Amino acid sequence: MAYLLPILLYLISTTGEIVSDHRKIRVDDDVYCESWRFSVETNDAGYWSTVPARCVQFVQDYMTGDRYRYDSEVVAENSLRFAKTVEISDSGSDGWVFDIDETLLSNLPYYQLIGFGSKTFDEESFDSWVDLAEAPALPASLSLYKELKQLGFKIFLLTGRSEYQRNATEKNLLYAGFTNWERLILRGPSDQGKPAIVYKSEKRSDLQHEGYRIHGNSGDQWSDLLGFAVATRSFKLPNPMYYIS
Amino acid sequence: MAYLLPILLYLISTTGEIVSDHRKIRVDDDVYCESWRFSVETNDAGYWSTVPARCVQFVQDYMTGDRYRYDSEVVAENSLRFAKTVEISDSGSDGWVFDIDETLLSNLPYYQLIGFGSKTFDEESFDSWVDLAEAPALPASLSLYKELKQLGFKIFLLTGRSEYQRNATEKNLLYAGFTNWERLILRGPSDQGKPAIVYKSEKRSDLQHEGYRIHGNSGDQWSDLLGFAVATRSFKLPNPMYYIS
Repeated sequence: MAYLLPILLYLISTTGEIVSDHRKIRVDDDVYCESWRFSVETNDAGYWSTVPARCVQFVQDYMTGDRYRYDSEVVAENSLRFAKTVEISDSGSDGWVFDIDETLLSNLPYYQLIGFGSKTFDEESFDSWVDLAEAPALPASLSLYKELKQLGFKIFLLTGRSEYQRNATEKNLLYAGFTNWERLILRGPSDQGKPAIVYKSEKRSDLQHEGYRIHGNSGDQWSDLLGFAVATRSFKLPNPMYYIS
Repeated sequence: MAYLLPILLYLISTTGEIVSDHRKIRVDDDVYCESWRFSVETNDAGYWSTVPARCVQFVQDYMTGDRYRYDSEVVAENSLRFAKTVEISDSGSDGWVFDIDETLLSNLPYYQLIGFGSKTFDEESFDSWVDLAEAPALPASLSLYKELKQLGFKIFLLTGRSEYQRNATEKNLLYAGFTNWERLILRGPSDQGKPAIVYKSEKRSDLQHEGYRIHGNSGDQWSDLLGFAVATRSFKLPNPMYYIS
């Protein structure tokens, strides 16, 4: 087995790179992290808990540079282009569903403090941040929100936050410039413990049973968008910092 | 209105950049094309016909460099990681569905000749290319294919190609190293004209009614993956060259 030693030493020396079998290629951090991000943003990755150590700097650069802001603007442009094709009825039943965190509000000030998704979610510190009610708007989403209202859509805010956070959430939304939503839906007692994809599908289904047509749905998690009672068009905002199933 | 002239001249001078309203930022080609690609790969863009002129070089670099190949490998790794969690029954009813073009076979040699998606789809030249039956395998997908078979999955190939292309398609699959699929499903007479998302959902539904469980589904188009009778997990391969609805 001695002939394996140089190979093992080589493998150890390239820690953090993709080395294993014949079909793998070795890549630098940038290619690695771009591919990791592709797998996350397309939902290919499935569940993941923290940003790979190798990609924390990549995520920081992405979130704090032009790319995050511009990706969000392109999503808003695509959303608005679709919204303008919708024929709005006089019945007031044309709806658009928005998630809140990393969709309307940006928690980037919080995630900057705790390392851009490099650590597992800490409910206590996040709840304290929510109570501050000082998350800024995602600029592109704020413009989209206003434009959708002008077009005549009823706006439904569907968040994984809980009822006890209603006051802080309303205060934060107003602080960030969001006004006149039709309804703010938070997790009630019977929604606790449900996966987000189930909870959100159920709430969309309730809206449909009330007679609303959900034309568009905007969210940074695939669990905001998939499941059942899905919108005519779903719009995935970027988020390489955390995953919610 | 004379005071508008300098603004108009400024807008004209920055042709190709994002200039319009207050919320837009101006970005260089790389940021622009990365965001365009994000919108395409997440399905936010909806229908699109050709790669934006500004991004043809970006797409060429992406497709012919490390990134495309490595993105595909990460998709295969995610797929295999999930596949290994599936408990395979003795009934032979555990299925995995693969699309063919840009999923198992790469038409990159063809798209290199016609400009990487910069021109609208030309059925005649593409059919001639299909008849050649010389498309190479996507290396990561070929490895995944073999590993899934070893795990005990029945492999279903579900393609938008038509029955008259069955012989050329089988020949090409064998040439590229794919063997022992359970079934190759092509568009029959009654499938012509249907959107891919409907045709493919119907065929997956048929498989489920036959008793197959579709655990995984791999495709480069969202129309391979969404609709109804969706797989337990869907895996989106990269494709910034064309869109099929």
